[in-house]
Order: sequence, then structure tokens, then C-alpha cells
Amino acid sequence: MKLFNVKKVDEVRKILDDVFSDACSKYELIPIEKSLGRVVYEDLYSPIDLPEFSRAVVDGYAVLSDDTHGAGESMPVFLNVIGRVDMGKAATESVKSSTAIYVPTGAMIPPGADAVVMIEYVENLDENTIAVYTPVAPGHGIIKKGDDIKKGHKLLSKGKRIRARDIGVLSALGIEFIKVYEKIKVSVISTGDEIVYPFGEVSFGQIRDINTNLLSAMAEESGADVSLKLLVKDDFDRLKEAINKALQVSDIIVLSGGSSVGAKDMTAKAIESLEDGKIFVHGVAVKPGKPTIIGKVENKAIFGLPGHPSSAMIIYKLFVDYLIRKYYSMNEDIIYVEALCSENIHSEPGKETYQPVELIEKDGTYEAVPIYGKSAAISKIAKSIGYIKIAENKEGIKKGEKVRVALF
Amino acid sequence: MKLFNVKKVDEVRKILDDVFSDACSKYELIPIEKSLGRVVYEDLYSPIDLPEFSRAVVDGYAVLSDDTHGAGESMPVFLNVIGRVDMGKAATESVKSSTAIYVPTGAMIPPGADAVVMIEYVENLDENTIAVYTPVAPGHGIIKKGDDIKKGHKLLSKGKRIRARDIGVLSALGIEFIKVYEKIKVSVISTGDEIVYPFGEVSFGQIRDINTNLLSAMAEESGADVSLKLLVKDDFDRLKEAINKALQVSDIIVLSGGSSVGAKDMTAKAIESLEDGKIFVHGVAVKPGKPTIIGKVENKAIFGLPGHPSSAMIIYKLFVDYLIRKYYSMNEDIIYVEALCSENIHSEPGKETYQPVELIEKDGTYEAVPIYGKSAAISKIAKSIGYIKIAENKEGIKKGEKVRVALF
Repeated sequence: MKLFNVKKVDEVRKILDDVFSDACSKYELIPIEKSLGRVVYEDLYSPIDLPEFSRAVVDGYAVLSDDTHGAGESMPVFLNVIGRVDMGKAATESVKSSTAIYVPTGAMIPPGADAVVMIEYVENLDENTIAVYTPVAPGHGIIKKGDDIKKGHKLLSKGKRIRARDIGVLSALGIEFIKVYEKIKVSVISTGDEIVYPFGEVSFGQIRDINTNLLSAMAEESGADVSLKLLVKDDFDRLKEAINKALQVSDIIVLSGGSSVGAKDMTAKAIESLEDGKIFVHGVAVKPGKPTIIGKVENKAIFGLPGHPSSAMIIYKLFVDYLIRKYYSMNEDIIYVEALCSENIHSEPGKETYQPVELIEKDGTYEAVPIYGKSAAISKIAKSIGYIKIAENKEGIKKGEKVRVALF
Repeated sequence: MKLFNVKKVDEVRKILDDVFSDACSKYELIPIEKSLGRVVYEDLYSPIDLPEFSRAVVDGYAVLSDDTHGAGESMPVFLNVIGRVDMGKAATESVKSSTAIYVPTGAMIPPGADAVVMIEYVENLDENTIAVYTPVAPGHGIIKKGDDIKKGHKLLSKGKRIRARDIGVLSALGIEFIKVYEKIKVSVISTGDEIVYPFGEVSFGQIRDINTNLLSAMAEESGADVSLKLLVKDDFDRLKEAINKALQVSDIIVLSGGSSVGAKDMTAKAIESLEDGKIFVHGVAVKPGKPTIIGKVENKAIFGLPGHPSSAMIIYKLFVDYLIRKYYSMNEDIIYVEALCSENIHSEPGKETYQPVELIEKDGTYEAVPIYGKSAAISKIAKSIGYIKIAENKEGIKKGEKVRVALF
């Protein structure tokens, strides 16, 4: 095994950027009604002006604004009502000087008219005549064609995750289908002689497999599809076989190691033994998660995560989730929650520390409570809603200090 | 139509609590591997102790702590090595006085032993003898049976949405299936003479339907299934027919009105014309969203939302999402994002104001930028990431004031 320098998070991410710069950019065209949560494949522009025609935004009379010039409470202007526009119908008749056409809110503005006088300022004198008691400026009471969204306006950027409101916007513009990224396919492989299928009876000494289901669910949360889940013993040939199987069906392979001595080396050796297999990262300067491996086979990324679930979760978030987001061209739009730290937190200088925390709400502010416990502890995972990062040059965090919590 | 008092948000929620206190509590039993995002149906307790057996947390020798008493760098204690425990295997042999058994990290502690001496403090003299250079206290190097999670400990509360880490915890405990709430079934009906199917060519004067797809996607985000989507004209009989259809297949019906005069009354009348149909809320003291209707037929909730998409979104969040969460027994675990307001916001006294905002990150803090524009404007919806609430007795918000943003 070659010796690698232990790397910092930013260095590792830079390597991921470089090594996997042009992988995974397949798209599919799907109905917008099925697109919630999917990621936009290319910038999307409005194909039309919105509104598609000038509309009334009040109930009133479409007029020529010039005709209302000088109108006032004591000196109305009289106009001849020549018709009405019904909701949802095209306005065919034109408004000419001294005439008006009734328009309800949302109706199309008839040709010729450049303003709408609200009914509140109008008196109906007879069936065909109104008195207008206020002057209106051009454009009053109207939303003009294209005022809301112009044809060609950028609606969605490549890499954006589609939310409900986006689907609303696309509907408004008549966009029925959208190009989204094909889902990244992830295989999850757990290794360890002591690790067994989690359900049913297990023998003394055996440990139920956590990481396969944990990391698979995390991959789903990242917007990936899990194509294969495997559990293998710490055996070189079986591990190599498992990786080969996973390579057939996935873009990313996430291994997590047992804690037995030498298991980590086995992962690295298995990757290097494959044709075109390379290791880029062997060890990261992160607490927890030092024994992290990142490699590549056939342009597919292979991650070797620590075996302890709580460390695996953090390394997953720092690198695997990062790569999936990169494949999807997603910007770093993680929403942080601001909180006050509930107690002093120590950190190891020279290492970035990622401390899992609980969030407790108190009178409208959040308190971040660090979760301690051995890194294998499941109770720790159960409570951790997110983590805070302590920079390598910072000596811990003081009680009451403001921190930013990244959610798991 | 009866006259109703315009109600405040809390009053409306109180009514929802009372009227729909015991509806919708069906569950299904599903594999935990398929449970991401689903809602826990009943409190769940650990069926086992974790770990299920006492385990070594270091590589070393399982010993009787008493034997190491007095050991030191210059005065080792000599022990007879009588075996080793392999990872994943049961420990069968017992440790007795003056003996030791090798245990790797994670291995089962052999009967008799009450501590593990790390290999760093041990010298191997020959195949069967070690010198121990440090004393160890009882429990040292061991995680005891049940130390992580005790049998009977509450793992998940009723009403919790299942996250990846929960699936990890359930795996660790051998829990293969979990009771989750059956998904609430929502029907979405949009009304309006001018509203047409959103895709393809539309005529002048017609408006593409936004609310059906917008509110359906929001219902999905709330964790509901959309069972029916309908678009109907402002016609009493057709509306009644649509509601009747929706009643067959859904727990909640979400109507949203066209903006034509009288459309709102029609919704109320249609509800009241149905057998057992009742209206509980007719108008809420919320800006925007005053013309909100809430009724009930056959124990199913019917909401009449404003026709303007941006108002409909807010009213959906305030009441429909609230009711879905209530049905799922979810606690108010909305995560707010703290931000500084980018400019003064005015509000109408006597009304709670819900102001949509954009969030802009600047040097690690968020700025909340209010989104203005006519409430029908789609560009406004596209930008709104969430909203801030201005209490009815508060006269707006000042530039630079700290606000909490609830995300859409």
C-alpha cells in the first residue's frame, strides 16, 4: 500500500471536483407533476410572456385614461358602456374614446383601453352610461402582458431541486415536461466479520448491520437511488467480488468498514487490484473519520467510510453527499440553523472537528447540545439532528457561543 | 349564507383540533428499509439491550481488574493467556484469576472478565504469558450489555417523521418492520371559469391552472398522497359533483377558488348542500387569505382557499398542512431560519400578516428580503422560500430587525 498524506476536507473536495469532473450527466424528461424533489438538468427559460395578455387586476371599466382626465368627485366624466368581457373569454370589441367596457378581475383588457377604473369610483346612470368620479393614469388597474414574467426569463437554474412552488410556476407557463438529472445510482456495501444481517436472531458476539440501511437511507435523502445493498465478510476475494458486482449497477459505491484490524487496508487493496482502480485519498484530517478512503474504478467513485455509524454519517455528509450534489450541479444551498452552544466543546488542534448536536428550542432560539458517547454508540445517532464544524485552528467552542448547525 | 365571524389563526387551529379530533388513524406495517419520510404510528421501544453482550472497545486483554491491582511501569503483573475471542464469535472460555484472554475491539467479553487492558500496556513475554504494566478499574475498556440502549427505552415517538438515522437505529436493534400512519389522502380541486388545463395551447382570456399542481405538490411535501386532481368551472352542480367524487377517495379536500365574484359563496353553498355538510370557518383575519372557508362532510375536512396562488400557499401552510400534521400526531417541529430583515415591512394592525420572503446569505448570516408584487404574480411565488409572521398587534417590522423565517 502506498503512503498517502492525510488530507483536509477542502483538499478532498478539490480532488473530488478534479477527478470526477465530467461524470454522470444523464437526464430524463418527466412530467412536472412527477418532478417534486428532482434536480433540474439545464437552465429553463419561460417560453411565454406571463400574463399572456393584459388583464384587469380589479373589477371595473376598461377605458382610455385620457378620457378620465379632469374627472373628480364633483365633476364626473360620462362614458358610454359598449359591452363587457367575461372571465376566460377573449376581448373582441375595442374601447374607443368616450366608451368603456366592463371587466371583472382577471379578465382580458379589451384592445384600445389603457386603464381600468374601479367600480367603487363609478356610478351606473343607466344601462349604457356610467359616471366616472376619478382620473386614472395609463396602466392603472392592469397587469400588462409579460409584466409578471417575460418570455425568455430564467425560471430555474441547472442544479436546482424542484419544490412545490416551482411546479406551480411551471404550470402557470404551460410547461408540461422538464429535463431532470437521472438519479445517481449508489451501491452500499458493509464489511466486517462480526457484522450480520440485522433482522431475526443473532448469535452472541455478532453485531447487527447498521450501516447498510443507514447509508442507503442517507443516499435516498441525497436524492440518489440505491441499486444494491451488500454485506460481506472481511475477505479480500469476497470484497473484490462485491465491488465488481456494484460497479455493474452504480455510479457511486459506498463501503463502510468493520472495525477489525486490517479491514481498511483490504478495502484499499481491493480497489487497487481492479483494472483501472486508483486511490486518491487515504486518510482525512477530520475528527471523527480519519480512516477514510476515496478511490475510483472506471470513472465510478468508491468511498471507504469508517465502520462506526456516527463517523460514517459525518463522512458520508462531507464527501459522498458532496459528490452527489456535484453530479447534480447543485449549489451549496444547505440551510444552517443558528444556535447557541449549551456548553464548552473541546477540539483537537490541527484537525477539523465535526461535533454531532441535538437542537433544543428555548423561547424562540435554539440551543445546540453536543452529543457525546463512544462513536459506535447508537443512542448518539438517535439524538443527533446535525453537526457543527470546529475549524482546525480554533480551540473548541465556548458555552453560549453562536454556532451554525448543518442538519443531517 | 350565514354570517360568520372572521377568525384568527389560533382560533381556526383550535376549531380544527376540536372538529377533527379523532379522524384518520389508520396504520400500515412496512419494512424499515421503505420507511424514510413516513410518520411513526405509535411510540416504539427497544426490544433488546444494546449492545446485546458486553463488548471490548479497545484491542487488548480481558482480565479480572483485581489481578492488575498494583501493576506499574516498573512492576508488571504477569498473566497466563488462555485464549482469544474472535470478532463475531461467542466467548466460551472464562477468565479466572491470573489468566487473560485476547479480545479485539468489538469482540465479546469472556465470562469472568470485568476489564480490558489495552495492548499498548502489555508485553508479550512468550506465547502464553503477558506482562501488564498498568492497573485497570472494573469496566475499563468495556461497553456493557445495555450501556448504549436499554431494553424498553423509547426509540421513536408517535408522530415522528422517520429520518435516515432512525433507520440506522432500528437496524441496530433488529427491528425489521414499523407501524407508520397510512398516508392521508388529499384531493385538490381548482375552480374558476377562466381557469383551464395548464398544458398546450390556451385561448386569449383563459388562464392556465396553477393551483391544482401547486397544491398537489405541497400536499406531497406534507407527506400526503394526492388521490384526485380536478378542475371545474364556477358552476354549482359541477362543483358539488366534484366534491362528491373527492369524498369517495380522500380524507381532505382542498378547493381553491377562481377570483370571479360569487365563487367563494358557491363553495360554501356546495358544502352546506351536502348531507351532513357544515361550515366552521368563513373568513380568517390573515393577510393574505381572508376569504378562507373550512367545512366538513362525513368527518372529512374541506378547505376553500383563495384563488391567488401565493395566498393559497400561505393558507395551505397555515391550515391544511397543520391538519395533516395533526392527523399524523406530529409536533410542531418546524425549523425556523433566523434572518435579519432587509427593509421595513408594513403590516395592517388587527390582522396577522404573513409576508413571503427570499433568503440571501451574507457572510454567514441570512437576510430576509420581502417579496412584493400582486398576489396573483407568479414571479413572486418563484422567489419565495418562506414567510415571516407579523403579529396582529405589531406595527410592521423594521429594517435590520431579527425575524424567523418558516420555510415553504
